[in-house]
Amino acid sequence: MIKVGVVGGTGYTGVELLRLLAGHPEAELAVITSRSEAGHAVADLFPNLRGSVDLAFSEPDTARLSACDLVFFATPNGTAMSMVPQLLDAGVRVIDLAADFRLRQADEWQQWYGMQHACPEYLQQAVYGLPEIYRSAIAQANLVANPGCYPTAVQLGFLPLLEEGLVECGQLVADAKSGVSGAGRKATTAMLLCEASENFKAYAVGGHRHLPEIRQGLEMVAGKPVGLTFVPHLTPMIRGIHATLYAQLLDTDCDLQEVFETRYSGEPFVDVLPAGSHPETRSVRGANHCRIAVHRPQQGNTVVVLSVIDNLVKGAAGQALQNMNVMFGLNELTGLKNIALLP
Amino acid sequence: MIKVGVVGGTGYTGVELLRLLAGHPEAELAVITSRSEAGHAVADLFPNLRGSVDLAFSEPDTARLSACDLVFFATPNGTAMSMVPQLLDAGVRVIDLAADFRLRQADEWQQWYGMQHACPEYLQQAVYGLPEIYRSAIAQANLVANPGCYPTAVQLGFLPLLEEGLVECGQLVADAKSGVSGAGRKATTAMLLCEASENFKAYAVGGHRHLPEIRQGLEMVAGKPVGLTFVPHLTPMIRGIHATLYAQLLDTDCDLQEVFETRYSGEPFVDVLPAGSHPETRSVRGANHCRIAVHRPQQGNTVVVLSVIDNLVKGAAGQALQNMNVMFGLNELTGLKNIALLP
Amino acid sequence: MIKVGVVGGTGYTGVELLRLLAGHPEAELAVITSRSEAGHAVADLFPNLRGSVDLAFSEPDTARLSACDLVFFATPNGTAMSMVPQLLDAGVRVIDLAADFRLRQADEWQQWYGMQHACPEYLQQAVYGLPEIYRSAIAQANLVANPGCYPTAVQLGFLPLLEEGLVECGQLVADAKSGVSGAGRKATTAMLLCEASENFKAYAVGGHRHLPEIRQGLEMVAGKPVGLTFVPHLTPMIRGIHATLYAQLLDTDCDLQEVFETRYSGEPFVDVLPAGSHPETRSVRGANHCRIAVHRPQQGNTVVVLSVIDNLVKGAAGQALQNMNVMFGLNELTGLKNIALLP
Amino acid sequence: MIKVGVVGGTGYTGVELLRLLAGHPEAELAVITSRSEAGHAVADLFPNLRGSVDLAFSEPDTARLSACDLVFFATPNGTAMSMVPQLLDAGVRVIDLAADFRLRQADEWQQWYGMQHACPEYLQQAVYGLPEIYRSAIAQANLVANPGCYPTAVQLGFLPLLEEGLVECGQLVADAKSGVSGAGRKATTAMLLCEASENFKAYAVGGHRHLPEIRQGLEMVAGKPVGLTFVPHLTPMIRGIHATLYAQLLDTDCDLQEVFETRYSGEPFVDVLPAGSHPETRSVRGANHCRIAVHRPQQGNTVVVLSVIDNLVKGAAGQALQNMNVMFGLNELTGLKNIALLP
Repeated sequence: MIKVGVVGGTGYTGVELLRLLAGHPEAELAVITSRSEAGHAVADLFPNLRGSVDLAFSEPDTARLSACDLVFFATPNGTAMSMVPQLLDAGVRVIDLAADFRLRQADEWQQWYGMQHACPEYLQQAVYGLPEIYRSAIAQANLVANPGCYPTAVQLGFLPLLEEGLVECGQLVADAKSGVSGAGRKATTAMLLCEASENFKAYAVGGHRHLPEIRQGLEMVAGKPVGLTFVPHLTPMIRGIHATLYAQLLDTDCDLQEVFETRYSGEPFVDVLPAGSHPETRSVRGANHCRIAVHRPQQGNTVVVLSVIDNLVKGAAGQALQNMNVMFGLNELTGLKNIALLP
Repeated sequence: MIKVGVVGGTGYTGVELLRLLAGHPEAELAVITSRSEAGHAVADLFPNLRGSVDLAFSEPDTARLSACDLVFFATPNGTAMSMVPQLLDAGVRVIDLAADFRLRQADEWQQWYGMQHACPEYLQQAVYGLPEIYRSAIAQANLVANPGCYPTAVQLGFLPLLEEGLVECGQLVADAKSGVSGAGRKATTAMLLCEASENFKAYAVGGHRHLPEIRQGLEMVAGKPVGLTFVPHLTPMIRGIHATLYAQLLDTDCDLQEVFETRYSGEPFVDVLPAGSHPETRSVRGANHCRIAVHRPQQGNTVVVLSVIDNLVKGAAGQALQNMNVMFGLNELTGLKNIALLP
Repeated sequence: MIKVGVVGGTGYTGVELLRLLAGHPEAELAVITSRSEAGHAVADLFPNLRGSVDLAFSEPDTARLSACDLVFFATPNGTAMSMVPQLLDAGVRVIDLAADFRLRQADEWQQWYGMQHACPEYLQQAVYGLPEIYRSAIAQANLVANPGCYPTAVQLGFLPLLEEGLVECGQLVADAKSGVSGAGRKATTAMLLCEASENFKAYAVGGHRHLPEIRQGLEMVAGKPVGLTFVPHLTPMIRGIHATLYAQLLDTDCDLQEVFETRYSGEPFVDVLPAGSHPETRSVRGANHCRIAVHRPQQGNTVVVLSVIDNLVKGAAGQALQNMNVMFGLNELTGLKNIALLP
Repeated sequence: MIKVGVVGGTGYTGVELLRLLAGHPEAELAVITSRSEAGHAVADLFPNLRGSVDLAFSEPDTARLSACDLVFFATPNGTAMSMVPQLLDAGVRVIDLAADFRLRQADEWQQWYGMQHACPEYLQQAVYGLPEIYRSAIAQANLVANPGCYPTAVQLGFLPLLEEGLVECGQLVADAKSGVSGAGRKATTAMLLCEASENFKAYAVGGHRHLPEIRQGLEMVAGKPVGLTFVPHLTPMIRGIHATLYAQLLDTDCDLQEVFETRYSGEPFVDVLPAGSHPETRSVRGANHCRIAVHRPQQGNTVVVLSVIDNLVKGAAGQALQNMNVMFGLNELTGLKNIALLP
């Protein structure tokens, strides 16, 4: 059994992590901390966990966390970086679901996250937790930076095209739509049901924090600079991300369907749909899958990739468990066989 | 392994049954039939099942079904009754998720369902599949009538009050609210998103088919006639039933909270919330639980019970699996440990 | 032209009031105050008003408000009572959309609203702004207490039954369902889309502030004490209240349909639907109507009334304008002819 | 008074047309036809119209329609073209809200709509009803082809860029998201609440009927061929279209904000938001406005335009009334001053 600690865990990523951990046969949730909820039973905050999770939140406490094999951070950005060095020194492995270790350059991190990085020396050592690219490095890693939700959907969609050099890298467009849970559980007027339902809008068109993360990831794969326009939108539903990706084909003769199917043939959580398909976000609701379809409309020069995930699962907590499975040598599917809830 | 057949299975009850069966370690889905979809892969109709269910729909075929240990009917009302006798004769056990065997009187069934019953002699032999009342009979049964969704939520809410004789039986009120999936997957104008979202309405106030089923169940428990006003409503969400139950207390001294906790203390799927609670339908979304709270507003003579289920799980497919577990001597929780999806 | 001031106006009742005032041909919005938003254009906060409302919020200022003919308070409970006496003294007429003047007894007000009333001497002089009952008093009133949303739907539904003495007054049940906008525009976790959508729950079963208001209103009509159980629920939509009302008939021979049609035959905003109907909340979305249907299920002793309103219109801002029309001798329909938005 | 007839009118475009016509001071609804609903009161089908529209549907009847000044067709594609020539010959002016007269080439129409055009000779004479471009021609027109919903949002967004020659015309991308009402009121499984809510998907990526309409419109403006990738998506709400438009700038020195503000300065229904804004679909719900924002993310070569409309108003019935106002020399705002319903 892997002895697991969770720091944070009062947000949506946290409750999803708890739901999945409760069903994981090889993980034992030993401690869950929250400064604001210390002393309260987890199941009082999240009634879906009644009968499944008996723990209460406790004050953050490095000593107790150090007794764990693995600690997940499901905290706001900027929290993990202040505790991670100490835990690593104590021999604990760490998966950070926030953004603290996602960017490799400290100055870029500071620019986008608006604070100084507390331990920039760890940025190069952290492994980016996208198993479909970095599986072997994750297996060895002590510190995994779990990818953002948009970055997961967008990178998995562009990946085969960039690896094969099939598209013009300078003009990529990622038009992404997210359910409201991506904004977290914090009380803000804009995320009230009365503001966000029966409504659709773009946001952060001028620049979103996931832009540098996606660009860094795509450039690693492409081996050269990429030009990316990333426009996130808020769509009136709880869960799900749909990324619609546009690129200009350099080679219109290749069989795009085959390229995608080949690339992901061995991947347990990436499902390439038959040609002509349109993946629906609900087909992955609650599940760790990314479903992808590739189109070339009107047989033109533009390739359109449709990529869907559940932002809280493959885009957060599920991917974190997948990384845990890889890190601890378990079958990657362990505890992640949930089927999407439909309808 | 229990060899399982499913008849029907193209509706919401069907896809939910498949989702749960795919995760049940002791059941093997051997055949699934659908006249309209014969030849098509199940996962083409329900993309959430891609990678989990490989079967294709086949034509209904009594011979193949007779090779099963258990057949579920997830068909429209009136279908099961034409096939069940033959299957029972072949030694197959049957759980009918439709209404064919829920009422004990053939004339009452005919009155509410608008057709003659094809095998009225089976109505007395069928066991009503509410394990919280009929567990031991279910264990022995060859034919189980799986309860309706409203009847499950309403009966579990009234049960402790009637068993203990605490309320006036002549003036029960059940004000019930259901998500739209209760109406099934059939294309009807009234269930379009544009008609049913951002809208709330009552329906069938004059008389709903679940009225006689609930009344029959309550009278069995009370041991005398009950007067019940049942008003169902459509609420703009996919899953969930919330029953708000009203009764006049005969005895205002009893500890209602204790009555409920005692009654359900050994029940794995009925969760009595602490005094003062308000159960939310989302706390059981995708899970087989019924969560209940009991109130006595303003310390008056009226008791108010709040009872929530997922209409497709405890109100249909989950309860059917629970019945299967009971019938085949398995741990009742087998394959039903899913935690509700929240948010 | 009626010179109108609005105090508050940054909540949902406020924006709805502004929308309706902008379309009212006899009202001129002269001043709108908000401490928190002073200096900001109204249309920056509510983009639907761009091009229709040019005003900016200003600091609350009794002098400027005193130059108005009428001031609406769209403030949290407890604000109006501190400013109203001064305005009345200045000859300004007032409509309070909050609860400050709805209850006639100061001690009861204090008990339910948790603060001492600032001007209890005005409670008896305030006129309760339900025109279907108090039209002539409203016409003369200087201070109108605009009813709550639930109280409007519930009272209009019970009214004909109580006026005619047709039901047992001791056992009334009002099971009411509200859209989320009833909770206002304040940022609270419970009203986030991710908490409130795809979910249904009761709340405040032990006692809701609208209970004493409804009871007071019903007792005025019945001329004797009434016993009322009131259970509010939150339903996952923005606008709309559906009240389902239950009472025991004293006389089962009367023609309930005729009683209702007769009572409301001259009322411009109360629409009694044909027998057997089920009113939908969307049929009044954005409109000032209350639509009602009356049922006697299974020809029993229980009468069921279904009553729907838009909580922000007939349940708040629309009713306030209706009261304004009555107070200033205008045609009651002026500025209130909007047709509900469907779908 | 303009004597108006409506053919069709049982769909969402129809009920919206009736809502707006009922509030138009210069139009008198004389006849409304529907083969399927003949004899039924309009308000029985659409309860929001109770008290506002007294008419009943009648059988389609050219004689009665010929007595009108103007006939709107709110019919499925392919219906108007069989009746329009006769009405025009009778001196009736026509606005077709369907697609029959939107494309100028009969062969292209046949290719996309799958049937032969009944009166191709009228395709050149029909005026495309986008007043922001063709106002003077509309004023003279006898036959107006009311634009599609996506085409309205997309063309208004691209218009200033193409008129000024600011972008590369060969690589335009229109990523558009529509509420479900765009699919009409027909009962189809895919548009059930349980299929379309809590879900997001693209559709018709290979080719949508609005593609040739948009391309034709953009080419008219640009004066040369354009290359357009158009991807429509279904978003879980009733009303609203959000078009996110991408183009490569030829000139990065121009002031895009000024270009847009100048172009639309005199337009009563196009609202250019301040720089940095993100228009929300709810800001136009029920209103005839198009709200637009223009961005140049990260000061790069890609311009991003955000354009929102209510698909049933500016995207259908409202634009039709705007065209009527233009055709009959009325103030263009007449009957179209409704403010969007928010929340």
